[in-house]
Amino acid sequence: MTRPSEDDLIARYFAPLAGEGAFGLRDDAACLSPRPGYDLVLTTDSLVESVHFLPDDAPGSIARKALGVNVSDLAAKGAEPRGFLLNLMLPDNWTEDWLSGFVAGLETAAAEFSCVLLGGDTVKTPGPLALAITAFGEVPVGRMVRRTTARVGDAICVSGTIGDAALGLALRKTPILAAGLGFDDAAFLADRYLHPRPRHRLAAALREHASAAMDVSDGLAGDLAKMMRASGASAVVELAQVPVSTAARKLVDVDGALLHRMVTGGDDYEILCTVPPTRLDMLRKEADRVGIPIAVIGQVIPGDDKPVFRLGEVERRYDVGSYAHF
Amino acid sequence: MTRPSEDDLIARYFAPLAGEGAFGLRDDAACLSPRPGYDLVLTTDSLVESVHFLPDDAPGSIARKALGVNVSDLAAKGAEPRGFLLNLMLPDNWTEDWLSGFVAGLETAAAEFSCVLLGGDTVKTPGPLALAITAFGEVPVGRMVRRTTARVGDAICVSGTIGDAALGLALRKTPILAAGLGFDDAAFLADRYLHPRPRHRLAAALREHASAAMDVSDGLAGDLAKMMRASGASAVVELAQVPVSTAARKLVDVDGALLHRMVTGGDDYEILCTVPPTRLDMLRKEADRVGIPIAVIGQVIPGDDKPVFRLGEVERRYDVGSYAHF
Repeated sequence: MTRPSEDDLIARYFAPLAGEGAFGLRDDAACLSPRPGYDLVLTTDSLVESVHFLPDDAPGSIARKALGVNVSDLAAKGAEPRGFLLNLMLPDNWTEDWLSGFVAGLETAAAEFSCVLLGGDTVKTPGPLALAITAFGEVPVGRMVRRTTARVGDAICVSGTIGDAALGLALRKTPILAAGLGFDDAAFLADRYLHPRPRHRLAAALREHASAAMDVSDGLAGDLAKMMRASGASAVVELAQVPVSTAARKLVDVDGALLHRMVTGGDDYEILCTVPPTRLDMLRKEADRVGIPIAVIGQVIPGDDKPVFRLGEVERRYDVGSYAHF
Repeated sequence: MTRPSEDDLIARYFAPLAGEGAFGLRDDAACLSPRPGYDLVLTTDSLVESVHFLPDDAPGSIARKALGVNVSDLAAKGAEPRGFLLNLMLPDNWTEDWLSGFVAGLETAAAEFSCVLLGGDTVKTPGPLALAITAFGEVPVGRMVRRTTARVGDAICVSGTIGDAALGLALRKTPILAAGLGFDDAAFLADRYLHPRPRHRLAAALREHASAAMDVSDGLAGDLAKMMRASGASAVVELAQVPVSTAARKLVDVDGALLHRMVTGGDDYEILCTVPPTRLDMLRKEADRVGIPIAVIGQVIPGDDKPVFRLGEVERRYDVGSYAHF
């Protein structure tokens, strides 16, 4: 079978997506500089088939996820997306149909997130499809929001709802769980697993009002533990305050144990941040303005224990995250 | 078997390599800005086991190659290395010994190339070991050396020697080829395949004197064709002028056909550049000063044919590159 060369492939599929500084993808490198008064924020995430997405996921969904998870990191750092590089490792059995779908999804996501393609690399692999995206954002100099700077007494907030993606994945693996859910609710949860909605419109508000932030990608419990450890603090969370979607609520009402899966499962791509109490109203107002719900779920407390999750009288410390095998 | 978490692994192995802007690898992102008056140049390359390196290559060699091929790209663009991100996709059977060796090689290479670790991502893969490095360099604003700007009449130059890596790989796959070569010569060729020597010390001279440049990674013939096509020109090369190492010369003297393999094989990581005749002496002088040999191998000519390689009366156009299956 004759395959297009890497150059042909770049010209046909990727060059139309190229942004300023990419030289039409006809060079070996790209050029990017922050505007005067801004720092460049760098983040990178790899995705491997069967680990980070499923083999039968639509190629456009995979592309969207790959870019979305990186833009989600930028958002949590208070950075506005600028551009990205794509490393694509294609197994021998790739098809032009697959690649067309992938590029179409990438184009839509890049436009939605205002993050242009700057360059990349396409290679063959004898193994599963894998890809990495490196994304670049801008923050005013010195204003990147850190994850190590939560302070005792700060409120702990999350955007959106938690646990939908974990349930969406569970439904795909165990369809019987969807019994009792309507089609729309099941579709909503499935979509939340497939299609991260990075909260880049929250970036400016986080810069102004958050003391620390990260995105929730490996599960709320593990990520909060990570942030607290990095900040030299602990936390208490009221499970009843953790925001849950209508669809997820229906499942939890039937099986309360699912709540634990929801706070330990990954792929939320919501913002987890700590906010000084005096700033809380201002953050809420800004979040309202951009249409992103924010909920207070707990508080930063002194100590070095893992965060406590309370539900009524019951307290629980999740042991996830620290032994994540990868 | 208990494995360290990704966080433990980062703290133990990678944090000691972290440079300024990496926040000790304790955040989700890094910060990097060019100095005032400079642009940031971005490049990325993926490496997959059995495609870009061999399964029994030493882990330190793999690390060095992964960083070296990226720094080689920066050098060709006239950029001074600043830092890099690492995406590491580890199969289940990785060992701490392997990782120690990898990190040791990475540290040595990073120091040699003045390119610090800024961040990255480690994930598991069911497939072969794979990695990607994204490297960042600096050039004075607007001075990135392009590959699309060769001009008719320019001299075509390469640094160092061509074809050693292709022969080194051939020797590993077909050891009998080494018959007649001494141990030192065979070791030299093997080393040239394993350990790219990026020409970053040539970056300033390229900015000053080259009209276009790229690094030779996919073979001289294919890469020159790529540069000429991108520049809307053609080229004539005198094969007898292509610089060849003493070790390679011994093999070519026995089997002249190897010369074709040398100009089509990859992994040279030398600089290919075009230079206006009036600038040639100055480039040579600068290259001498940093101890890197430069040879003139041909000339840019009008046309859109593939470059011609001449050896005495024989002319040859290589058909490589344009159908590279990946």
